[in-house]
Amino acid sequence: MKRSIGADTLAYPTPVWCVGSYDAQGKPNVMTIAWGGICCSKPPAVTVSLRKATYTYGCIKERGAYTVSIPSTAYAAQADYFGIASGKHTDKFEDTGLTPVPSETVDAPYVGEFPLILACKVIHTLEIGLHTQFVGEIVNILAGEEILNAKGQVLMDKAAPFVYGTGTREYWALGETIGRGFDIGKRFRK
Amino acid sequence: MKRSIGADTLAYPTPVWCVGSYDAQGKPNVMTIAWGGICCSKPPAVTVSLRKATYTYGCIKERGAYTVSIPSTAYAAQADYFGIASGKHTDKFEDTGLTPVPSETVDAPYVGEFPLILACKVIHTLEIGLHTQFVGEIVNILAGEEILNAKGQVLMDKAAPFVYGTGTREYWALGETIGRGFDIGKRFRK
Repeated sequence: MKRSIGADTLAYPTPVWCVGSYDAQGKPNVMTIAWGGICCSKPPAVTVSLRKATYTYGCIKERGAYTVSIPSTAYAAQADYFGIASGKHTDKFEDTGLTPVPSETVDAPYVGEFPLILACKVIHTLEIGLHTQFVGEIVNILAGEEILNAKGQVLMDKAAPFVYGTGTREYWALGETIGRGFDIGKRFRK
Repeated sequence: MKRSIGADTLAYPTPVWCVGSYDAQGKPNVMTIAWGGICCSKPPAVTVSLRKATYTYGCIKERGAYTVSIPSTAYAAQADYFGIASGKHTDKFEDTGLTPVPSETVDAPYVGEFPLILACKVIHTLEIGLHTQFVGEIVNILAGEEILNAKGQVLMDKAAPFVYGTGTREYWALGETIGRGFDIGKRFRK
């Protein structure tokens, strides 16, 4: 039996992504978001939505670029901190001891210790309400050798990304693979 | 050591969401997507990106509404099928035996057997490239009693959503919780 629980942002699960940017003075900053997703294959593009009040909002407006550094579970606490503190008041890289590395392809830094990095150039900005959505063209991806198979594909269990559950505010690791895409559903074909 | 693997849509992990819609004749259709995410808190809004060639694209254009039915792992094969077959050629509800239920709040059907349903009205349409992004205001959420705690919050392990890994084309279930948001990072505060 279902019941109505009203209008809310309970889309499960949401990603945990760390958005890197430079401010006007060139200070590297990083902020964790759960409001985002891939939005296009050609050009490859990913969205991140931010409140105007965030430091990162101003940085992206200034530079027109950002990175998405995808943390592995080993860095869950650092990623959480990146969503708690503000770059207005502190240097989150210094606080956590993680390394801001300048992207070679876009005007933004990424988190050196994280295994998977998307370098993005802003191609659209959409005002929706409390949040502004930036659409970034993914101009390059950097991946740690340790998370790639022989074909150069990212291995989920090695990258070890994790997700966020809005309602109970918990992070969850991934478990086991449960089947192949465009395959396990073939049995329903008539 | 990181290496560049080019421009691609490798944002890990992506959700597995089943988008419900009616066509011009009122036939219910459902399609699985991985390109989407929450994009705003006020109004609560969620994006889904579709190629113009899909049947669902025309349905959403026609009706200005869609649902997002979030499958639990028990329905992984059905969800996969919803991404393989096209509503142009078949009735995917009939093929899988799942039930199209008319939403009471928007002009779209949802998958009755799935535990978590977002009812959405289109408030923006953004042409990006191969994909068109629909931004839908979430006007209501339906949740199965079995996935809610006493506070009415969605429990991740009961909802049992799963994610998709683009590179290796595998679905992955969630595992264990690894900590609380806005909490496990506090130790880095200066």
